[in-house]
Amino acid sequence: MLTNPRSDRVRSVRALSRRSVRSRTGLFLAEGPQSVREAVVHRAEHVRDVYVTAQAAQRHTDIITRAEDAGLHVHETSADVLSTMAETETPQGIVAVCRRADLSLDAALAGLPPDAVVCVLTHVRDPGNAGTVIRGADAAGADLVVVSDASVDVYAPKVVRSTAGSIFHLPVVVGRPVNEILAALAARGIRRLAADGAGTTLLHDAPLDGPHAWVMGNEAWGLPAEVRAQCDDVVRVPIYGLAESLNLAMAATVCLYASAEARRRAGR
Amino acid sequence: MLTNPRSDRVRSVRALSRRSVRSRTGLFLAEGPQSVREAVVHRAEHVRDVYVTAQAAQRHTDIITRAEDAGLHVHETSADVLSTMAETETPQGIVAVCRRADLSLDAALAGLPPDAVVCVLTHVRDPGNAGTVIRGADAAGADLVVVSDASVDVYAPKVVRSTAGSIFHLPVVVGRPVNEILAALAARGIRRLAADGAGTTLLHDAPLDGPHAWVMGNEAWGLPAEVRAQCDDVVRVPIYGLAESLNLAMAATVCLYASAEARRRAGR
Repeated sequence: MLTNPRSDRVRSVRALSRRSVRSRTGLFLAEGPQSVREAVVHRAEHVRDVYVTAQAAQRHTDIITRAEDAGLHVHETSADVLSTMAETETPQGIVAVCRRADLSLDAALAGLPPDAVVCVLTHVRDPGNAGTVIRGADAAGADLVVVSDASVDVYAPKVVRSTAGSIFHLPVVVGRPVNEILAALAARGIRRLAADGAGTTLLHDAPLDGPHAWVMGNEAWGLPAEVRAQCDDVVRVPIYGLAESLNLAMAATVCLYASAEARRRAGR
Repeated sequence: MLTNPRSDRVRSVRALSRRSVRSRTGLFLAEGPQSVREAVVHRAEHVRDVYVTAQAAQRHTDIITRAEDAGLHVHETSADVLSTMAETETPQGIVAVCRRADLSLDAALAGLPPDAVVCVLTHVRDPGNAGTVIRGADAAGADLVVVSDASVDVYAPKVVRSTAGSIFHLPVVVGRPVNEILAALAARGIRRLAADGAGTTLLHDAPLDGPHAWVMGNEAWGLPAEVRAQCDDVVRVPIYGLAESLNLAMAATVCLYASAEARRRAGR
């Protein structure tokens, strides 16, 4: 059992709360039973170590069994060690160190189905918003999430938590400039739909019948004009009442569900 | 100019952060330019006093002019006084004391159009979620929000802030037990659609062609079984990917936008 909160191992896990350390090592931390379960079930090949207190191990035998069946290293730790490792105040006794997938944009695009729905995030700064959009993309059955380099780090603990496990459910590409992402989508014949309150096309008129990518911007000021200009359409969610706007996660979810609904109707 | 943070007036405004004081006085606080602007523009008859620092008054002349034109009391305060009044750390120099509408359920239902869309919240505990759902209801053009007594107080500062002004845009009824709300809706011929992950009707099959009410429950555990049982349908937003669920605000927004889209298609 790991009991020394000042050991090198514990320090190295704790250090994953820093972006520079995550970049250098290619590792990140999944905190809490939901995240760890989804990592172990859907991305066991990317899980390096599971750390769990005796109490949490008893409560979450399904996770422990699954992890051990997958041949993963499960380490019992003291409550002290666990809370030192985690960023959350209540990691609920279980965390996992995971390797990021490091999927290239080209490989991800090559693997898409013909009627792909992609979600692109750029200039998104709030970790909770980014995570919630990824969760919405997963729920709506999007095929790929691409997060530009000008965005929050999706492997930051708060983003990972906000995805509620979705970061382990669908491919996520990170680290490319938005211009390059938009060009690569066009090269693959994927229509780029900027989602922005400045749009002139209303959501219900948006062309959702072929492969397309929703391009979502900053929570406060939307997409930079030059990004909108590079997209094929600028689409806005209609506001029927007096609200000025929807927040980013709500707008993204409504757009992505419109895509899912178009796909369902077409029987795809 | 009000400069004494310990004066009775300042204390009485500050006391509105307490639910008991809000209940007793029927007053609540709108904080920040967005909330105050929406209150002054859309509910001037319910605004009792506007408090503003000299600096904020210069920055938001539109709000001050509008308030003065409406015959409202605008009080200049020191920065100290203003931050003592507000709950937020950054109220951005302006707050308003407002009277709640205290609309009765019967009066609100009697005022609905024939194709009404209503949003009912019950057992919602998180202020941010409640506020975000009200904002979504406003954006989607819902006609009425009803918040049961078993829910967070919608006049709590954090809820008011999270509505981003929407609490001043559409009628909000509070304080009735959920059973009574459901019975009153039925008596008016308004179909009650429980939105819940346990639903057997998928959103795209939900009967949205007549007047209907979305009934939304707790962020963590959904609707109590007895509430679901009293509704006409239990509807779930389909999950196309591997996500376990959507969060409350996202699910509510997707449902309310499905209603808006049904209404738009019917040309209503």
